[in-house]
Amino acid sequence: MNGEEPMAHAAWLPAEAFGALGARRVLVHGEGLLVDTVFDEVAGACAGHGGQVWRTGVGAESGDAPTAGAVRPVAGGSAVGAVDLVLALRGPGPLPAVVARAGTTTGDDGPLGDEGFLLARADDVTVVLADAPAGLLYGLFHLVRLGEAAFDAELPVRRHRPALRRRMLDHWDNVAVHPVMGQVERGYAGGSIFWRDGAARRDAPRIRAYGRLLAGCGVNAISVNNVNVHATEARLLTDRLDEVAWIADALRLYGVRVHLSVTFAAPVVLGDLPTADPLDEKVRDWWATTSAQVYARIPDFGGYLVKADSEGQPGPFSYGRDHADGANLLAEALAPYGGVVHWRAFVYDHRQDWRDRFTDRARAAYDHFAPLDGRFHDNVVLQVKFGPLDFQVREPVSPVIAAMPATRLAVELQVTQEYTGQQRHVCYLGPWWSEVLGFRPWGPGERTVADVLADVPGPGPARGGDLVAVANVGDDPYWCGHPLAQANLYAFGRLAWDPRLDPGAVLDEWIDLTFPPSTSGDPALVRATLHAVMDGSWRTYERYTTPLGVGFMVRPGHHYGPDVDGYEYTPWGTYHFADRDGVGVDRSRATGTGFTGQYPPPWSQVYESREHCPDELLLFFHHVPYSHVLHSGSTVVQHIYDTHFAGVEQVVAMRERWRRLAGTIDPAVYERVGERLDEQVRSATEWRDQLNTYFFRKSGVPDARGRRIH
Amino acid sequence: MNGEEPMAHAAWLPAEAFGALGARRVLVHGEGLLVDTVFDEVAGACAGHGGQVWRTGVGAESGDAPTAGAVRPVAGGSAVGAVDLVLALRGPGPLPAVVARAGTTTGDDGPLGDEGFLLARADDVTVVLADAPAGLLYGLFHLVRLGEAAFDAELPVRRHRPALRRRMLDHWDNVAVHPVMGQVERGYAGGSIFWRDGAARRDAPRIRAYGRLLAGCGVNAISVNNVNVHATEARLLTDRLDEVAWIADALRLYGVRVHLSVTFAAPVVLGDLPTADPLDEKVRDWWATTSAQVYARIPDFGGYLVKADSEGQPGPFSYGRDHADGANLLAEALAPYGGVVHWRAFVYDHRQDWRDRFTDRARAAYDHFAPLDGRFHDNVVLQVKFGPLDFQVREPVSPVIAAMPATRLAVELQVTQEYTGQQRHVCYLGPWWSEVLGFRPWGPGERTVADVLADVPGPGPARGGDLVAVANVGDDPYWCGHPLAQANLYAFGRLAWDPRLDPGAVLDEWIDLTFPPSTSGDPALVRATLHAVMDGSWRTYERYTTPLGVGFMVRPGHHYGPDVDGYEYTPWGTYHFADRDGVGVDRSRATGTGFTGQYPPPWSQVYESREHCPDELLLFFHHVPYSHVLHSGSTVVQHIYDTHFAGVEQVVAMRERWRRLAGTIDPAVYERVGERLDEQVRSATEWRDQLNTYFFRKSGVPDARGRRIH
Repeated sequence: MNGEEPMAHAAWLPAEAFGALGARRVLVHGEGLLVDTVFDEVAGACAGHGGQVWRTGVGAESGDAPTAGAVRPVAGGSAVGAVDLVLALRGPGPLPAVVARAGTTTGDDGPLGDEGFLLARADDVTVVLADAPAGLLYGLFHLVRLGEAAFDAELPVRRHRPALRRRMLDHWDNVAVHPVMGQVERGYAGGSIFWRDGAARRDAPRIRAYGRLLAGCGVNAISVNNVNVHATEARLLTDRLDEVAWIADALRLYGVRVHLSVTFAAPVVLGDLPTADPLDEKVRDWWATTSAQVYARIPDFGGYLVKADSEGQPGPFSYGRDHADGANLLAEALAPYGGVVHWRAFVYDHRQDWRDRFTDRARAAYDHFAPLDGRFHDNVVLQVKFGPLDFQVREPVSPVIAAMPATRLAVELQVTQEYTGQQRHVCYLGPWWSEVLGFRPWGPGERTVADVLADVPGPGPARGGDLVAVANVGDDPYWCGHPLAQANLYAFGRLAWDPRLDPGAVLDEWIDLTFPPSTSGDPALVRATLHAVMDGSWRTYERYTTPLGVGFMVRPGHHYGPDVDGYEYTPWGTYHFADRDGVGVDRSRATGTGFTGQYPPPWSQVYESREHCPDELLLFFHHVPYSHVLHSGSTVVQHIYDTHFAGVEQVVAMRERWRRLAGTIDPAVYERVGERLDEQVRSATEWRDQLNTYFFRKSGVPDARGRRIH
Repeated sequence: MNGEEPMAHAAWLPAEAFGALGARRVLVHGEGLLVDTVFDEVAGACAGHGGQVWRTGVGAESGDAPTAGAVRPVAGGSAVGAVDLVLALRGPGPLPAVVARAGTTTGDDGPLGDEGFLLARADDVTVVLADAPAGLLYGLFHLVRLGEAAFDAELPVRRHRPALRRRMLDHWDNVAVHPVMGQVERGYAGGSIFWRDGAARRDAPRIRAYGRLLAGCGVNAISVNNVNVHATEARLLTDRLDEVAWIADALRLYGVRVHLSVTFAAPVVLGDLPTADPLDEKVRDWWATTSAQVYARIPDFGGYLVKADSEGQPGPFSYGRDHADGANLLAEALAPYGGVVHWRAFVYDHRQDWRDRFTDRARAAYDHFAPLDGRFHDNVVLQVKFGPLDFQVREPVSPVIAAMPATRLAVELQVTQEYTGQQRHVCYLGPWWSEVLGFRPWGPGERTVADVLADVPGPGPARGGDLVAVANVGDDPYWCGHPLAQANLYAFGRLAWDPRLDPGAVLDEWIDLTFPPSTSGDPALVRATLHAVMDGSWRTYERYTTPLGVGFMVRPGHHYGPDVDGYEYTPWGTYHFADRDGVGVDRSRATGTGFTGQYPPPWSQVYESREHCPDELLLFFHHVPYSHVLHSGSTVVQHIYDTHFAGVEQVVAMRERWRRLAGTIDPAVYERVGERLDEQVRSATEWRDQLNTYFFRKSGVPDARGRRIH
């Protein structure tokens, strides 16, 4: 335990979730670090649940029959008749007979890739095959999700490969506590698991447990520090690289590669050069040398993450260069080692003038980056926030995603609930992400966002890319502050692996793993309650907070709780323009900022038109009178009143539902969630009252149903 | 210099200000620490300006004629014919002949008190007499203000005694840097002159210079630490008392006594007692013992300043006791040594519900304290903010001042410009304080606030009291950040000494001292410019910020710059209730919170009536439609537009005026003020545009003059 706090909550990998697997006779075949991990996982499960495990391969000498819970390698061929499960790596040579016999039942020898696996069950043997160790690891966790279903009946061959090559979490962890942003920027789960007060924590059990959870949901990369790289954090690249290497060593056991946020000014800040100009030879040399040193220490280092020329961070603009120059500089330094640059497209003017109604922050990423399409090296990944603004509870999908066919893209989400209740509110984000990933930028029948990222061929971009999210974990005993916020982390990984998964089904997986039926007095009640509380929680959150896509009505700075005018007269470019007659931002081409023109048809027409624009995005695209009638038949102002009253009622109902779980689940989890639901009711009520009062004071329109507005 | 920065700006005591005095032949008579200070001041002046100085008294042996600039004591009677100025302490025994001869010319031997002095000039000798050393010190600085006028012609006898016994500055300095409030809470002039990063600075030259400036304007007491007493600061009372004693030793040279902010929880926090209950015997013993130790170390210690049961500070409410119990507890501990308790009346509910329109923070001080009148010990000073809210740019005078005839009161002002431009804006506060001090709580012909504090007999309170202000100095080279903010510190001291002084005349004094005519290329231009820039600056500030007494339209937290709704939906009790029809707080008895009933007639009637309420306080007392016509003939909304346009124009004109001073004053001062005027123009423009836009969006009423509203 290394002098740290007691181990954190097991989340979706409690011992009980390994019951079906751990009761079997298992053979593991193959070599490599991750195969060792698989073997150790199986051995641990068998030790706890009475199963047996063998391993083939180098050094396996003994032919003894296995003992319950025993962990011993066996020579190929022995005890085959007794095996229920084979986890095997297909190598260049022939498989041992026992494995081959099981393997041939699959009748499939197509390639599975670096991370894919194949699962089948026939003749009372379940077989997981992979071509690479990581595939075997993901196959193992797939078995855990299946539970007894993996052993019940014949299973036809099914191949599993991740849709997206990189499924990544960005930690906005600071090494030194930032005077304003703290240890973890936008973190709502305590301190950082990596750093505390300027020092590396090196809490091996916790980091290994974290890696295991990541592998258990399919995440295979993290960046370990905040994209706002302050002075202390800059040094992780050079003299504090050892701290990054330590994390990489710990997470390598679970197939998670480590990336690092770096400052574009590093050659000046760390290298004593007079410039960080990307076209300067000395600057290029510095990055080449520095990167070589990084790879000497961390051979599988993932690459750099860069926030440049954004919110005060340095970037190529300082030297009269553009973002392609900047990103390519780092890409060249990483290319020899297979590393990538994640270059954030979150570039906008944060010193805007609120008086200026035509400068539009929503346009900024497209305006900056679309003209650069084709100029980025192949190992540059342009990381685009899912919406044009900044992780609001409702935004249209960013037009950048359809605009850069020759550029590798990552879409960035926030698992951390900065604008969705900060892990004090239940807000299951799976349905929202599912909408984003399923959005079709070129219209019905065309490819989805997920298709773009997955490199599915089509008329638009086809370079393939990543799904990235800002992490939500900290040193909180429940990892995420709110125990139910673990579901967001889980769902992110699962949707990144397979964006077509139904978010409700993903929630089912999570419920079964996290609240194993064997541990509850009433598993059906637990499942029904969690669905009732979580399924619609994002839409509920939207109801009691900001209406119709308008966004940013939050308290400035910390972003928790309502403040309708909080950002209205600031330089941040986040306005709603509410007056006594109406509300919303005119982003039309006809009379507004022209942002709708950044979309390809049909969206460029749909969003342009007040009539066709979807209700939930109306105020994002249009300034309309309070009396404007929505597709729902309600006026805008009555919609505001109705949704806010309804939202609070729904939160109250969520709390009631939750209370029925008393006595059926872990009392500590029950209490923690209960406390947070109390706060959610309080906060939702505050949102309702402030929003309704604000719009009543402005519009003067009374509630059609005569409810109390203060 | 003790390793500290170079000495700070001379403010109103530059060497040139001592020219008239320092060119004379001066005799100083009397014994005591402050007479030594007087003698040293005179000697220093004579050394610089060619005068001569003698001193009578113990140890004075030599009868030699003085030499230019010489500093030597002489036996009484020598060289009398050559003396231009006598500064003499009247003792119990007969005066030496030389002093007596001069003294008798005054024909006045009435008592002058602890701090008073008498000035006269006859037979070519100017005489300053005092009964106590502090009086002589104040007499000396009076001579400095008079300059050559003290020596020009015969001057009839004039007696000077301070109207108020205690003229005090409260430093809101923290010992340790507070994570939110910093080194100095509401400080706009750099760090603390007393502490830095948790340690005492012990910067003797700076603290002595500070004491000299305080004596030079008449301030005779300071509290050295923030009224919000955090953990580190609590210990100043006990194991860090030595740091307070060091400050007391340094300031004693200039007649300034030191007070300390203490936490009411001190017996628990510092004394390991289980309670701080004011009626608990052990608690009383603890305070008695602790106070005895304080006086053993600092015999002239002033007393304790306490913020109790306010904004999270502990207090007697925690033990079911009231504020009289709490204040008297400390008063008893201090009484044996002549110390006083300043007990702040700033007690209110800071967790108010904005939906509740009848709970009124303005009522709080009166509601809490008026019922306790008569219960406070004689050495309790109830410290009341000048207005019922919190140092806003315009508030009515607090009704508490007229409500507690049996209680000693202090009125608290803010020299630090928390709500008046934070020393980035020129805002000369003398005229505002003059209005407050001249306000007649019982109506025309009755006593003023200053009379109440000065203990002038009348029908209302007559216990006498203090004038207190939150300090505005820090370790900035100009002491106050803005060089012109020095005038506020100066004016505070002068108005506390004599509240009937004309603030314009006080400004004249300050100009002559700070910008001595001998140092300028064009003294008349300097004087005219400073008057043009400063005279009306408070009203200008009011014009471009919050209209008609409504208050608190500032950015939450730091309070700089506009945010009309910033506090509107918060728990702080600071609302304006603007809607599409009107704005303002109904504090009437008829339909509102009843606050007007806390005033005696005629104000209870005047404020109650929309018709009679003064325009500048209308929105403080009434919620009125935007179309309401003011006494000025303008509607409320047009008034808002007009004053905001005018305010910005006036600031622009101030900057233009200032620029004409180029080359006539110290270039460093010229530059510093010029930069701050640029910021003032920017900020005033922002205020104008946000306020006008906000009210235009709400009211829909266009500007009658068709100016641009965004």
